[in-house]
Amino acid sequence: MKNIYIIGVGLIGGSLALDIKNLDATTTIYGIDKSDEHLDIALENGIIDRKATIEDIKNADLVIVAIPVDVTVKELPKLLDMVSDDTLIVDVGSTKEDICSAVENHPKRRNFLAMHPIAGTEFSGPNAAILGLYNGKTNIICEVEETAFKLQEKALKLFSDIGMRMRYMKPKAHDKHIAYMSHLSHISSFMLGKTVIDKEKNERDIFDMAGSGFESTVRLAKSSPEMWTPIFEQNKTNVIETLEEYINNLTQFKELMQRDDFEAIYNEMKNTNYIKQILNGIA
Amino acid sequence: MKNIYIIGVGLIGGSLALDIKNLDATTTIYGIDKSDEHLDIALENGIIDRKATIEDIKNADLVIVAIPVDVTVKELPKLLDMVSDDTLIVDVGSTKEDICSAVENHPKRRNFLAMHPIAGTEFSGPNAAILGLYNGKTNIICEVEETAFKLQEKALKLFSDIGMRMRYMKPKAHDKHIAYMSHLSHISSFMLGKTVIDKEKNERDIFDMAGSGFESTVRLAKSSPEMWTPIFEQNKTNVIETLEEYINNLTQFKELMQRDDFEAIYNEMKNTNYIKQILNGIA
Repeated sequence: MKNIYIIGVGLIGGSLALDIKNLDATTTIYGIDKSDEHLDIALENGIIDRKATIEDIKNADLVIVAIPVDVTVKELPKLLDMVSDDTLIVDVGSTKEDICSAVENHPKRRNFLAMHPIAGTEFSGPNAAILGLYNGKTNIICEVEETAFKLQEKALKLFSDIGMRMRYMKPKAHDKHIAYMSHLSHISSFMLGKTVIDKEKNERDIFDMAGSGFESTVRLAKSSPEMWTPIFEQNKTNVIETLEEYINNLTQFKELMQRDDFEAIYNEMKNTNYIKQILNGIA
Repeated sequence: MKNIYIIGVGLIGGSLALDIKNLDATTTIYGIDKSDEHLDIALENGIIDRKATIEDIKNADLVIVAIPVDVTVKELPKLLDMVSDDTLIVDVGSTKEDICSAVENHPKRRNFLAMHPIAGTEFSGPNAAILGLYNGKTNIICEVEETAFKLQEKALKLFSDIGMRMRYMKPKAHDKHIAYMSHLSHISSFMLGKTVIDKEKNERDIFDMAGSGFESTVRLAKSSPEMWTPIFEQNKTNVIETLEEYINNLTQFKELMQRDDFEAIYNEMKNTNYIKQILNGIA
């Protein structure tokens, strides 16, 4: 894995580049991006060693595709057409079903590994890339059996060496569960932000009243619409299901309040405190 | 302000004690709590200097009431009955209308200052108390004109010395805006936790998929039901209004997805990114 090409030098691709370079300084990291400005920043910040273009990936040992998921679905088959038999392409998208389907019957399917590193921040672009982002994080691998064994072996060692734990899952199961564990959080946060902005934007000084609780709950509403719109589109069915359950729970909570059933309100919260145990399991 | 009595030595009262003691070591901090265990922990952790009982507050310069808001409404008039003319009682509750009403016509109304320091964490009890919690935070003061000038002057200097900025507001306005800026975040977080737990509790290993985004959005679902149930009860009308708007926004988002109007989804998120500017204003 001496020549690594990162397509999309933003938060996710850029942070992977930093971790990989930090692990082995003899690796050369090439950056490819539709934005020349982002490539320049990536070069300046030491995220990549050289700029490159799509045609150059024929020389790659590893290609990391870190672009919006709709573009991945469109471009991945063409990228596979271009690489050698010894090259592995991985993607890092937050959806897996459409991406795996897009290359299902591709003659070079064995040169592709579908993965989803569960890591990120609410920021985007190369200036958001940080060293160590993936340390201790989970990397979901889908359809591992479809990837050439020698290629997956090298890649999984690399991702393990930068601190990730691998978990294996079918694309369908990934997309269903990630709707609950990630996509719903983003929508709940965006709509919280919208509700407060709609109500309070004309109130002077009102945001002085925002504490760390509001800040943490609304943090994901800073996320990039460019990244998230195609994720919601590809995972539409699952996301709508989570939204319906979430709206039902909120409506039920509201109705308990309207009925003055504060004993039930107390119990709802007490039961949900169970999230502590779950989050302790994460940390 | 040499003799300060803290009623309720949990996260909020305990952290105030730590900051005040840190400012002036000659102050004696007395702790009063219905839980003997909490008093012992507070003493051990250096949060209070001595244990005390309610009767002792006749010797207080300052009494800080940091207990659930329903108990404050009930106890505050009796506490006022017990103190001397030179004592100030402050409360720190997350609602202000019912608390101010409870003492509206009390002969010692001038010995009370209603306030709401906007600070906290998702934890509770004396072990959650931390030094510096109030540094740089906002303290909402209600009906300042109802408090004896000499008493408010000393108290506001004290809270300013531990790093707080004072903001003055009517109880009605406080309760309305805090519903958006704090209470709604807690419900959105609790119901997110509930939705995910309900769906996923029988799935093995699924919580490996939780990233920092989920963790931050669901953080407030660890909060204490003992504290929050009476807050929602006292602020029922405002909280129901925020919930209705939040549910409407979520429903609209879901309907846009069902209609495949992802351009509108994109715009919703883009507009809500404005929250960045707001949060930068806070930080």
